[in-house]
Amino acid sequence: MKRKGMLLIISGPSGAGKGTVCKALLAKHNELVLSISMTTRAPRENEIDGVHYFFETKDKFMKLIGEGEFLEYAVVHGRDFYGTPKRFVTEQLEAGNDVVLEIDVEGAMQVKNSFKNGIFVFIMPPTFNELKNRLIGRGTESEEAIERRLKTAAFELQNVNKYDYVVINDVVENAVDCVETILKAECYTVGRNKEVIDEFIGGVL
Amino acid sequence: MKRKGMLLIISGPSGAGKGTVCKALLAKHNELVLSISMTTRAPRENEIDGVHYFFETKDKFMKLIGEGEFLEYAVVHGRDFYGTPKRFVTEQLEAGNDVVLEIDVEGAMQVKNSFKNGIFVFIMPPTFNELKNRLIGRGTESEEAIERRLKTAAFELQNVNKYDYVVINDVVENAVDCVETILKAECYTVGRNKEVIDEFIGGVL
Repeated sequence: MKRKGMLLIISGPSGAGKGTVCKALLAKHNELVLSISMTTRAPRENEIDGVHYFFETKDKFMKLIGEGEFLEYAVVHGRDFYGTPKRFVTEQLEAGNDVVLEIDVEGAMQVKNSFKNGIFVFIMPPTFNELKNRLIGRGTESEEAIERRLKTAAFELQNVNKYDYVVINDVVENAVDCVETILKAECYTVGRNKEVIDEFIGGVL
Repeated sequence: MKRKGMLLIISGPSGAGKGTVCKALLAKHNELVLSISMTTRAPRENEIDGVHYFFETKDKFMKLIGEGEFLEYAVVHGRDFYGTPKRFVTEQLEAGNDVVLEIDVEGAMQVKNSFKNGIFVFIMPPTFNELKNRLIGRGTESEEAIERRLKTAAFELQNVNKYDYVVINDVVENAVDCVETILKAECYTVGRNKEVIDEFIGGVL
């Protein structure tokens, strides 16, 4: 019997390295499907609809919001919508594929409300100083922007208790190992084996 | 920082092979500590107090019950007390050792009420017929006794939903692998990392 897929939410403050962990995880496991976001912003050069994003008009996006078709969505920079379409994820899960969703803390908290059986993993930097260094090391942002990100990170960290797991991203390979272990163990949870159990009990009664 | 130990409850109907799985797990991991039961029955030849059992008088056992010193206990064959002393387990956990408790379903359900952070694993035979064959294969019991065990098993299976994980014991080595994975993953649960998280957040605020 094929089990249903699992939704793995990889989340955490920016600078924790959730993107790097996700990328390494997907590179190692091509059976995992990455959730594709929908956006109303224009495609950049080389961006393909249905691969990098689902590109949609604002009217269509808002209509989908009204129909409850997002696991989460947000307006970014007061200009564009970004969201996680529910249908893509549920179709993959029904087909038995595990889906990975990389998302910020605010989005993850929305998903927690709209989807019941997710595996919520909080990627944590080894120390707050390390987080600082990583953000500075990017060299792409002003001191002010970094300061803002750190404040956000401090705030986001307060939400870690709403997650299922916390993985400290010291070395990326180790963090990926942790996530693999979590995924494997989740296959054995009672909640994910209701059908096997019912079938077994059905054979007894 | 050393984390606290975890209590792993390996349980399931008789004939599912929980004993075999436990034995193989402990043989592979000598860092794991087996919980030692207390009993009022007399030691058999070669049984050592504090190794195979803690042997106690009925008066002492009942006094300990009154003091809430058992994670679970039962009267067996209307004659002898058997129980899991709380102190031994909690001392090991405080010292950072993971403790394995092999126990029947009724006992596990008692532990669930008396201890909050256990990892409850239900060892399940691959099929009910296989369970039957295993009990018959032992060749130690009457047809009537086997029938009684099967009825008990059918009843015990109704409790699987109160466990955290279900592991199908088809091949012992695979079942041990599953339990290892579960133990590893549990190390990353948010609930077991409160101190690490608090320390991190403390460094931020």
